[in-house]
Amino acid sequence: MEFQPKSDNFIQKVEESFARQKFMDFIGARLIKVEPGFCEIHIPYNENLTQQHGFFHAGIIGSLADNVAGYAAFSLMEESSSILTVEFKLNLMSPGDGDLLIGRSNVLKNGRTLTICRSEVFVCKDGKEKICAASQSTLIELKNSADNKTEK
Amino acid sequence: MEFQPKSDNFIQKVEESFARQKFMDFIGARLIKVEPGFCEIHIPYNENLTQQHGFFHAGIIGSLADNVAGYAAFSLMEESSSILTVEFKLNLMSPGDGDLLIGRSNVLKNGRTLTICRSEVFVCKDGKEKICAASQSTLIELKNSADNKTEK
Amino acid sequence: MEFQPKSDNFIQKVEESFARQKFMDFIGARLIKVEPGFCEIHIPYNENLTQQHGFFHAGIIGSLADNVAGYAAFSLMEESSSILTVEFKLNLMSPGDGDLLIGRSNVLKNGRTLTICRSEVFVCKDGKEKICAASQSTLIELKNSADNKTEK
Amino acid sequence: MEFQPKSDNFIQKVEESFARQKFMDFIGARLIKVEPGFCEIHIPYNENLTQQHGFFHAGIIGSLADNVAGYAAFSLMEESSSILTVEFKLNLMSPGDGDLLIGRSNVLKNGRTLTICRSEVFVCKDGKEKICAASQSTLIELKNSADNKTEK
Repeated sequence: MEFQPKSDNFIQKVEESFARQKFMDFIGARLIKVEPGFCEIHIPYNENLTQQHGFFHAGIIGSLADNVAGYAAFSLMEESSSILTVEFKLNLMSPGDGDLLIGRSNVLKNGRTLTICRSEVFVCKDGKEKICAASQSTLIELKNSADNKTEK
Repeated sequence: MEFQPKSDNFIQKVEESFARQKFMDFIGARLIKVEPGFCEIHIPYNENLTQQHGFFHAGIIGSLADNVAGYAAFSLMEESSSILTVEFKLNLMSPGDGDLLIGRSNVLKNGRTLTICRSEVFVCKDGKEKICAASQSTLIELKNSADNKTEK
Repeated sequence: MEFQPKSDNFIQKVEESFARQKFMDFIGARLIKVEPGFCEIHIPYNENLTQQHGFFHAGIIGSLADNVAGYAAFSLMEESSSILTVEFKLNLMSPGDGDLLIGRSNVLKNGRTLTICRSEVFVCKDGKEKICAASQSTLIELKNSADNKTEK
Repeated sequence: MEFQPKSDNFIQKVEESFARQKFMDFIGARLIKVEPGFCEIHIPYNENLTQQHGFFHAGIIGSLADNVAGYAAFSLMEESSSILTVEFKLNLMSPGDGDLLIGRSNVLKNGRTLTICRSEVFVCKDGKEKICAASQSTLIELKNSADNKTEK
């Protein structure tokens, strides 16, 4: 599906918002690609991100799925809008056993107020990608509510 | 609802599993209470855990909701079982604006293979609790698959 | 939680909307109770509503969960508003084996635009209620969009 | 993705199970296509299936999404297995305004016990398909539990 961004600066807008998320920096997430209605983020393996078996923690996988969905949706929103996740649902399909997590999200429907995304998280091991989670998310556009203001 | 744990050591079992999750330590999460079919975990505010407005990141809120559900369910499982999150769905209802996140989860149904939990995340500000998220989770019991083994 | 309906006629408003849903009549659903932020609907057993084992079909259970959530939320909305389900997530916990389905929903959060509900479906057999499903729903209020107009 | 059915009679198995669902007959649903890990079902418009605006009821849309997921998953299961929906999450993206509903589902992951599907529901009007809902489902395989037995 082809989407038309409402802002010419949609890539910069996403990059700046991503850079303001201290949690993304804390877990070593890297914004890899932004297209209209699409986003890809990577998280390299780090012992701090693990659960009891030494694999990527479900919380990290969920954070990644939520973030790619948020920025896929945000890429289509107006310059002056902010975004919030309304809800998401995540299926964990394989253990996060690998050296890199890759999250990708595509907008499924970009409505006036709500945007729906589908995302997948892949885990890479020895150069092979394997799907480890899939999610479906609902995001809301808050018009005239700049993303970098702290009052909301 | 009253649940009967299958293991006498259910509290210790949960504490030990929690202690093995490096990600929980990394984000400063503290296991507060474990009862049969119930779990409470706290996460104090820390700038590293924030999104672009300086509030608790949705990924942290989701991680908390997932973890309390996992341990509420794990409290009812057999000594020799391991647990995995099958899926969860999270509604974010208010910004995570406060100095402490409190996650609480209750088992709704403890089946032979699958356990269903409902969880709430509250954010505390100036001593007042406000609900900020609610989730519903499905967990699976892996029999004879000790929680502390790394092969799975 | 105590909710304040914005319309004095909230019960009548719900009853009239329910009466306009031909599908509810078709499956024999009965609106039992409406309170601010709460709704209860019953569906008596009927062979037409069954799946391959002769139990209530998951589609009926989901329809019930969705409808009680919708009307619990609608009870709090303005007289001139219409409502749409944005999404819902349903866990089926026991077979729908009984002579009556009871759906109950409570509003968890009544926001300006979005309302979040939690619902439970019980199946009655020989006079005993057993939980058979639980859901969590997001509803949207469409202001100035009367519920009985067909254009939307 | 390519899936290998475990039963040579997977199409007949799905057809027979579908035929036993009285609710599918009641709402006029027609099984259109079954492939390994895929299912398509249609529901023609009928006033009995409508909500308050005369469009397909969300309950019908959800029933369709649940059923295509169930049969996409069932197509991959063993001859002697039965299937149950564990849970599903549905986003309603456009009103069900049209003369035909088309549900399609693909298996995303076919695990030993659990199968995950993604489904879409399209509404047709004047010969044009428009996506109206998307879901993500978890199904469980009950081994040695024939689909046509009523005790379970």
